[in-house]
Amino acid sequence: MSVRVIVTGGTFDKEYNELDGTLFFKETHVPEMLVLGRNKLDVAVTTLMMIDSLEMTDKDRERILEACRTSPEERITHGTDTMEVTALRLGESMLPKTIVLTGAMVPYKFGSSDGLFNLGSALAFAQSLPRGVYIAMNGRCFAWDNVRKNRTEGVFEERKA
Amino acid sequence: MSVRVIVTGGTFDKEYNELDGTLFFKETHVPEMLVLGRNKLDVAVTTLMMIDSLEMTDKDRERILEACRTSPEERITHGTDTMEVTALRLGESMLPKTIVLTGAMVPYKFGSSDGLFNLGSALAFAQSLPRGVYIAMNGRCFAWDNVRKNRTEGVFEERKA
Amino acid sequence: MSVRVIVTGGTFDKEYNELDGTLFFKETHVPEMLVLGRNKLDVAVTTLMMIDSLEMTDKDRERILEACRTSPEERITHGTDTMEVTALRLGESMLPKTIVLTGAMVPYKFGSSDGLFNLGSALAFAQSLPRGVYIAMNGRCFAWDNVRKNRTEGVFEERKA
Amino acid sequence: MSVRVIVTGGTFDKEYNELDGTLFFKETHVPEMLVLGRNKLDVAVTTLMMIDSLEMTDKDRERILEACRTSPEERITHGTDTMEVTALRLGESMLPKTIVLTGAMVPYKFGSSDGLFNLGSALAFAQSLPRGVYIAMNGRCFAWDNVRKNRTEGVFEERKA
Repeated sequence: MSVRVIVTGGTFDKEYNELDGTLFFKETHVPEMLVLGRNKLDVAVTTLMMIDSLEMTDKDRERILEACRTSPEERITHGTDTMEVTALRLGESMLPKTIVLTGAMVPYKFGSSDGLFNLGSALAFAQSLPRGVYIAMNGRCFAWDNVRKNRTEGVFEERKA
Repeated sequence: MSVRVIVTGGTFDKEYNELDGTLFFKETHVPEMLVLGRNKLDVAVTTLMMIDSLEMTDKDRERILEACRTSPEERITHGTDTMEVTALRLGESMLPKTIVLTGAMVPYKFGSSDGLFNLGSALAFAQSLPRGVYIAMNGRCFAWDNVRKNRTEGVFEERKA
Repeated sequence: MSVRVIVTGGTFDKEYNELDGTLFFKETHVPEMLVLGRNKLDVAVTTLMMIDSLEMTDKDRERILEACRTSPEERITHGTDTMEVTALRLGESMLPKTIVLTGAMVPYKFGSSDGLFNLGSALAFAQSLPRGVYIAMNGRCFAWDNVRKNRTEGVFEERKA
Repeated sequence: MSVRVIVTGGTFDKEYNELDGTLFFKETHVPEMLVLGRNKLDVAVTTLMMIDSLEMTDKDRERILEACRTSPEERITHGTDTMEVTALRLGESMLPKTIVLTGAMVPYKFGSSDGLFNLGSALAFAQSLPRGVYIAMNGRCFAWDNVRKNRTEGVFEERKA
């Protein structure tokens, strides 16, 4: 089994600029994280864009959908921050693949990041769940049509109680 | 869905003794790791033993099996190092649960540990795989009756090519 | 010998806000860093302000000077980012104490921070240098009247070649 | 000003062997630590030996003394664990240099190491103290003829109350 990771940027990959003290994007940390996790799964990493998901446009989401569509792999994981919107767009397209979106609450480069935990979790769900689009965050997994981000508490939850 | 983590020690939880420079066990780091992963899944942690799995006896494995059997949860994850032996013992018992064993190549307290990646992955497999006993390590997942540790390379692999 | 650390905020102490992805100040990490360094020196920590030094006013610098003046200790270390300006103000006041300013290029909470190295260094200079005002950054130490930040390269250097 | 770091191994540089779970020596982490500390001081690093200081013989200490003697630099820092014995041997030799010994209670590769703090501190003392032999550990600095390791508490202290 092989999995493709499509990188779009997001909190996951933010770096600290030592010169001006801002956060910015340089390169994805996913390969480094796979090394840290001693990953032995067949994983291909594609960087599609490196942006803050707050700036992600409908056009960007079409590009993500297209990347999912043309990927030879059956199973795809990728990171983003306004994930529920992207999940919705991908879910409606009914691709015959298992697509798992993941991200991080805190950049990987911060010692206190949840990124490695989420990446491990997303790769596992991508291998074991049936076709469909999912969001995997902080130990849980949600179907694309039943998830929202609770912005007050900073957690993902089901839309329906 | 809820998952029970049964802790048995292993590399995962080794600490460094500042006084004499040896590695030892104090308490499990699993709760701390769940906090770091901002885990939102319903997870209960039980420490069954804190030993090096090289010292794990048949009697210890019976205790693990008993803990799996009596756990009210359907899905159980736990850590150990001679995992293939424990997996075999648990697999033969045919419990109607999803049991995922995981561990780490490097103690969690070392900056370079794969523990958080593996824990995220094991919790995901425990939620999504059908009943059975599995070993989840370094991005991959193996069935209990088809896994062995390649001690030369330090990786898990299928027994049959 | 005892040293007082006067905290003013700066890059050192920036935290990542998980809800909105900005950097902010909560509490100083100096006590936590002293624990990590297994510090055995008699150190008292006073938080005077928690601000970005780009926003530090002349009035703030007067408060720092006052804190240095009234501190019973002979030796004082503290963190700031427009350090050369603060060093100048403190240096001109000719207090009969050893004052060492330090900071960090990257927040302590980032795994890749130089903060712990600089804190160790500043506490050592504070114990061993004669009276005067100094900036200790990245292994080096500069007198207050001969230092500037090279903003292109992000390093401190002597004003005179 | 330039400083030479003479590496002898010790807790500082212990690595974790993923295959057999033991601690061992590979290469020194001092250069990596200097990069992390964004060190700008002129530092030369020499690896003299990579051993546990419990195994350090009188002959090894003669080699260290010789390395200190022949080093062109005036100021030398180096790491070891039975530091008081080495300090005594170097102190009696009355070399016209500032020599600072340092080490770590926990290997650098462990997230919870005091190594970076101690290295920053030792480099600072090496620049600022008069000629003589010193031990710099955990924020404090001791003269070679008035220091001992309190093995019960794992801290260095003055020999005389």
